[in-house]
Amino acid sequence: MILATLFSPLSLLLLLFFSISTLSFSHFVPTFPSSSKFHPELTTQLSRSSSSSSSNGLYETKFFTQTLDHFDYTPQSNHKFQQRYLFNDTHWGGANNNAPIFVYTGNEGNIEWFTQNTGFMFENAPRFQALLVFIEHRFYGKSVPFGGNREVAYANTSTLGYLSSTQALADYATLIIDLKKNISAIDSPVVVFGGSYGGMLAAWFRMKYPHVTIGALASSAPILHFPGLVSPYVFSDTIANDFRSEGENCYNVIKSSWKQIEDAGKTDKGLKLLQKSFRLCKNYSSDFLEGWLQSAWTYTAMTDYPTPSNFMNPLPAYPIRKMCEAIEKEKKRSAFEKLYAAANIYYNYSGSATCFDLDDHSDPHDLGGWQWQACSEMIMPLGVRKESMFPESEWSYKSRSDSCQFYYNTTPRPHWITTEFGGYHIHQVLKRSASNIIFFNGLRDPWSGGGVLKSISKTLVAIVAKEGAHHVDLRYSTKEDPKWLTHVREKEIKIIASWIKRYYRDLQL
Amino acid sequence: MILATLFSPLSLLLLLFFSISTLSFSHFVPTFPSSSKFHPELTTQLSRSSSSSSSNGLYETKFFTQTLDHFDYTPQSNHKFQQRYLFNDTHWGGANNNAPIFVYTGNEGNIEWFTQNTGFMFENAPRFQALLVFIEHRFYGKSVPFGGNREVAYANTSTLGYLSSTQALADYATLIIDLKKNISAIDSPVVVFGGSYGGMLAAWFRMKYPHVTIGALASSAPILHFPGLVSPYVFSDTIANDFRSEGENCYNVIKSSWKQIEDAGKTDKGLKLLQKSFRLCKNYSSDFLEGWLQSAWTYTAMTDYPTPSNFMNPLPAYPIRKMCEAIEKEKKRSAFEKLYAAANIYYNYSGSATCFDLDDHSDPHDLGGWQWQACSEMIMPLGVRKESMFPESEWSYKSRSDSCQFYYNTTPRPHWITTEFGGYHIHQVLKRSASNIIFFNGLRDPWSGGGVLKSISKTLVAIVAKEGAHHVDLRYSTKEDPKWLTHVREKEIKIIASWIKRYYRDLQL
Repeated sequence: MILATLFSPLSLLLLLFFSISTLSFSHFVPTFPSSSKFHPELTTQLSRSSSSSSSNGLYETKFFTQTLDHFDYTPQSNHKFQQRYLFNDTHWGGANNNAPIFVYTGNEGNIEWFTQNTGFMFENAPRFQALLVFIEHRFYGKSVPFGGNREVAYANTSTLGYLSSTQALADYATLIIDLKKNISAIDSPVVVFGGSYGGMLAAWFRMKYPHVTIGALASSAPILHFPGLVSPYVFSDTIANDFRSEGENCYNVIKSSWKQIEDAGKTDKGLKLLQKSFRLCKNYSSDFLEGWLQSAWTYTAMTDYPTPSNFMNPLPAYPIRKMCEAIEKEKKRSAFEKLYAAANIYYNYSGSATCFDLDDHSDPHDLGGWQWQACSEMIMPLGVRKESMFPESEWSYKSRSDSCQFYYNTTPRPHWITTEFGGYHIHQVLKRSASNIIFFNGLRDPWSGGGVLKSISKTLVAIVAKEGAHHVDLRYSTKEDPKWLTHVREKEIKIIASWIKRYYRDLQL
Repeated sequence: MILATLFSPLSLLLLLFFSISTLSFSHFVPTFPSSSKFHPELTTQLSRSSSSSSSNGLYETKFFTQTLDHFDYTPQSNHKFQQRYLFNDTHWGGANNNAPIFVYTGNEGNIEWFTQNTGFMFENAPRFQALLVFIEHRFYGKSVPFGGNREVAYANTSTLGYLSSTQALADYATLIIDLKKNISAIDSPVVVFGGSYGGMLAAWFRMKYPHVTIGALASSAPILHFPGLVSPYVFSDTIANDFRSEGENCYNVIKSSWKQIEDAGKTDKGLKLLQKSFRLCKNYSSDFLEGWLQSAWTYTAMTDYPTPSNFMNPLPAYPIRKMCEAIEKEKKRSAFEKLYAAANIYYNYSGSATCFDLDDHSDPHDLGGWQWQACSEMIMPLGVRKESMFPESEWSYKSRSDSCQFYYNTTPRPHWITTEFGGYHIHQVLKRSASNIIFFNGLRDPWSGGGVLKSISKTLVAIVAKEGAHHVDLRYSTKEDPKWLTHVREKEIKIIASWIKRYYRDLQL
């Protein structure tokens, strides 16, 4: 659900997987998503406690015997694995009424986490008398092929090679069709939902499997963030604009920080100053600290929600504003103290962390497989231009390819996604060949630049929220929600209702 | 291009591949297509001479380096192979004019053969200033993976497992996109054409890759001939109706022949009579003869064209009528002599065969790979009801599955095609999610029962020709063409022109 990018000369990709600090990247490499690797202990605890809601009657956990490879018929292809899905029929109107089925097309992580952050489906189940199903993406969470043995599944490309978007979509089609048969609900309309990569999958699922779903709510789905379709700078530019919108000085403090940190990192005294200023548990090179700060600004931009949230980390409402306020508060402090105060909002809003461990490789939401996807098919170009808030960095496919060669002994297929799913002339193409997709984007979300921001037809609707962040529409509603957010959700509900209504009418013809 | 089925208790599937006559099938197994395995020598010569037209300036032969497995990223997936395509730019209006590209989505055989039988594209290239491209299907003709080594590629499921429809479609997308880049024709509209399985691929290609093609002419494409969507009897019933339409007696002679042949096959004397009556080069069991006759009736029904043709075999115009005339001609002859006279029209129209070799395993059009496809994903149920002209035979998935297990050590995935491509409620689904497909069907074609016979929307048009046979519209026109056929082609041309016109208009918006 969270798509992130990291901009350090020493890519976090390396840190996440291999803790190799000697290899240097001249260009940044996205983790898409990264996540909470840099959380202090407390945050990890918080996310653990939030995942206990599975026992609160939110859903039943089920497993489906899935085929490893849908498109080939080699002996290996026929292997099976257990795919997890979560199921809630509390409000379902039943098969006899052809009552709808709402399916979340899981993304790159533990499905429970996405489920708990997709209140929109739970809140609207009663209104639509909808059955809720949340399907976990292969290779994530508990849906690991090769006997559920993560070490085998992730060992090398001979096993990891089956982690791909097209296989995931075919999984969803297979599972949904089988589920509908089993509950005798063959004619129940299926609406798919997803945010971020899950939103890309939802949109693509409607395009590729219109016989399985009548429509898709694709929230913050950067389906155009691929080579040749979008500027590599749009992601970092959006983050810069987010901070700038809260004050030119805030932006300038961050923009000028990188050189100061690098300079400090050159001497022992400087390193000690950094450790002290940023409450680091031990001494780290400036590269680590830069990555840590870039993560904070990036993830906060993505989750710059108008209400308090606890998606990646616990955060206050409008966290970028809070960060800039923290930077502005006491003019006399040093730049490092200001930056620390801002970063502290992302990493330690609850205030209980005593020091920060930049070496924390924990992955509580099990997002690690994305690194592989970014090395096989998910080539989403990201760069930083001089005017941006981050250190300048040109997008380099070669850097990505080299690192993928180094770590996985694989070369990406940079044109596959656009070959399989299109993107070029998307308006002209989709208006003649698709229908029933809502593309929601919040313009404060750095991923919005790769989204569909203009409606394509009456049934391919772009909803753009100037003040919105990453798939904010899918979150549980709160009393504090601003009006624009309530309106966005109302509009989505109305559109989904119209799909279902038309489906029933078509069925009677 | 030719999809066939064979109805013998001893399936021809076995004969084609393994010459095992001891194994018996209680149900018939389709070869889809079978082809000219039972031609006398002459026919083979004729097809050879027709394929020499490649030197007549019809096309250039090119090769494209294709990826073995588009959907996975295992080491094996990255293997490459040379995919053949035929290319003719004689009439092309050029990249500067965004002139159209007509692509034939090759089916289960040598692409040269299909190309030579798709005059429609050649005849309409000047009018549309179209570039012509005919792409060969992987594993057929010269497009064989694993270094072009047919023995390796067909050795077992570890290699043959990459022969699948989804891989073929992805091949086409990859090749077309690359070709357009290479000739700087990125904005040239692509129209795809195909007949029979090639027509299924063309229709599916428009559904799945609308960003690569603006429309598809899917001729005689039985995309509904899958489990649960169509009666297994429709194929054999259509053949019976074809013969019956030429005379009740003709139909009765054939219908009553099976028992007579079986009875004759029980004694040496009878077998000698069969050999003599049917001019067999040596003694064959009655099973062989039944299969040989069923092939004749089946392929003649498929190619019951209104003009002389030489697709499977050289045939006169209206060959079923000719067969029935041969049966009726001299009332005094024995049933076997009558049947021989009819079969002779299919197997020996040129009259130069001296005897028939039912053991002929030649495969001049290289169609053998279909047997594998019928054992992996192409589960197209076929059965014969009591009232039919063929020996009664219930469709049995188990029989198919057992034989696939026996020969390939594989179990089919009978629901995959409908999972991937749909079919259930096809009208309701496609009218909301697709456009620009012409479904042509001739009702004398036994495969028409699995086709889309009613228009779905203004842009999803069914053209049904009562008198038509298997993709007759795609053939070269002749002066003797009946009016209905000329009208069909005119209608198709008009529709394709409208797609292109609208595409250019869309492009300017």
